[in-house]
Amino acid sequence: MTRTILSSATKEVIIGFDQPFIMIGERINPTGRKLLAAEMKEGNYDRVVSDALAQVAAGAQMLDVNAGIPLADEPKILAEVIQLVQSVTDVPLCIDSSIIEALEAGLSVYKGRALVNSTTAESEVMERVLPLVKKYDAAVVAISNDETGISEDPDVRFEIAKLIVQRAQDHGIKPQDVVVDPLVMPIGAINQAGRDVFRLVRRLREELKVNTTCGASNIGFGLPNRHAINNSFLPMIAGMGMTSAILNPLHEGLVPAIKAADVLNGVDPNCTNWIRQFREPSPEGEGRGRGGREGRRRRG
Amino acid sequence: MTRTILSSATKEVIIGFDQPFIMIGERINPTGRKLLAAEMKEGNYDRVVSDALAQVAAGAQMLDVNAGIPLADEPKILAEVIQLVQSVTDVPLCIDSSIIEALEAGLSVYKGRALVNSTTAESEVMERVLPLVKKYDAAVVAISNDETGISEDPDVRFEIAKLIVQRAQDHGIKPQDVVVDPLVMPIGAINQAGRDVFRLVRRLREELKVNTTCGASNIGFGLPNRHAINNSFLPMIAGMGMTSAILNPLHEGLVPAIKAADVLNGVDPNCTNWIRQFREPSPEGEGRGRGGREGRRRRG
Repeated sequence: MTRTILSSATKEVIIGFDQPFIMIGERINPTGRKLLAAEMKEGNYDRVVSDALAQVAAGAQMLDVNAGIPLADEPKILAEVIQLVQSVTDVPLCIDSSIIEALEAGLSVYKGRALVNSTTAESEVMERVLPLVKKYDAAVVAISNDETGISEDPDVRFEIAKLIVQRAQDHGIKPQDVVVDPLVMPIGAINQAGRDVFRLVRRLREELKVNTTCGASNIGFGLPNRHAINNSFLPMIAGMGMTSAILNPLHEGLVPAIKAADVLNGVDPNCTNWIRQFREPSPEGEGRGRGGREGRRRRG
Repeated sequence: MTRTILSSATKEVIIGFDQPFIMIGERINPTGRKLLAAEMKEGNYDRVVSDALAQVAAGAQMLDVNAGIPLADEPKILAEVIQLVQSVTDVPLCIDSSIIEALEAGLSVYKGRALVNSTTAESEVMERVLPLVKKYDAAVVAISNDETGISEDPDVRFEIAKLIVQRAQDHGIKPQDVVVDPLVMPIGAINQAGRDVFRLVRRLREELKVNTTCGASNIGFGLPNRHAINNSFLPMIAGMGMTSAILNPLHEGLVPAIKAADVLNGVDPNCTNWIRQFREPSPEGEGRGRGGREGRRRRG
């Protein structure tokens, strides 16, 4: 039973076949967010803090932190943001950068066991990222593309994921600490993208026996009402065996959709989490449970 | 590629592996609806008509019609209701009764090719229902329980479904005209109910190669926010290969959840149905598409 154990200074989170689906909040990322990018570049992290708190309140069990701002000192900003986010929340973090110095700066200040986002199967990338993952005893997201780009053939993507897992083992990183991103293609462009990734996730779980994750917001790219595509995609891919995703927990309906998938996948024993989150409040206003925000949204 | 072809006088609907998921509206059923039961018993079918129209407007491609009212003349009422519903909508119907005389009365007035709901694997039931299905060239829902009741073991339920398919063949009914209901157990009572039925549906599709359906509203029985359980369950089970369900298309979020599953399963080529339903209206108010009701709900 594959388990990837991540932690902050005080909290442990397990991504695993027998565990509830782990939602990794995607919001702390300046890509496509001009205002946030400008603020982060100036060292103003107010929005980072509010995004961190809001995502955790909405149900994120981990947060992705990215500081990829053009012409900025990314290693410095990423390290500062990680320290700040760790001071206001207790969830483990996913340290997200394509720059090796930024990953190292982040890892060097991180308290606990982080998830490094990410390596591909490109030799040069693996040879820089994997030693760092090993040095800091972290886990790593493995994106299933290589020097030739992203294959549309899911069987090729499977082989690429397998290669990363093998190379990680060469570096002393266990397969259970490699979380594969099978790459979700936009369904509006590729009609078979859904079926392909469903089959690929199933193979990754059953044959390679690894945990999986994805950038979930990609699937509906270009389509109207794309959040509704996501709200079906995540339960479906969780049913196929995916165990985590990088997503926006503030999108309406997404957290309940995933929590329902936990119930249906048998990883919310006795529906305990579900009932705690959605039970009717008692007349005295007690019993709303920890999921107040979600609780108020229930449809009765 | 299995296809079950149903029709009204003017419209054909295909339940099939390569087809959009077929939503069979469940509302025309007096079970648990005291007011409707009283009205139907008196021959007042106003609510039947409004329920029929509302469900079709919401997206139901078929309607289930049930007239099971204690101490009422069920064959007469069922036949009347079927004729009435066929006069106001053009969708094919699912004729739903546990009384053989009612099924025959319904079939005898039905225009088109109906889906008979249902037979179990109980010998006595099969020997009464299957000849009727053959006589009227209908298709039939096969519920996977027998004289001993409902097994909690999905492999037993598979064998029972297989038996009904074989017996149907003995009566000259093709396997493609048997739509198996694998029986969805309440997840609040049986923690493994979701995983079990997912695996069973997969086996029914891959090994027995039959279409499947279910009474979808059962899964969340007894749980708070049960509609949200359904809104995840249906995409998940559609991902496993289920091809239709008897459900309430008026429940918030359910139709978009299923339409999104069609997109993700690759049975909405080029996302044509999705885009037609959810695209932004033009400034002149055109282009809302046929799904006006759903269109207004989109989250943008």
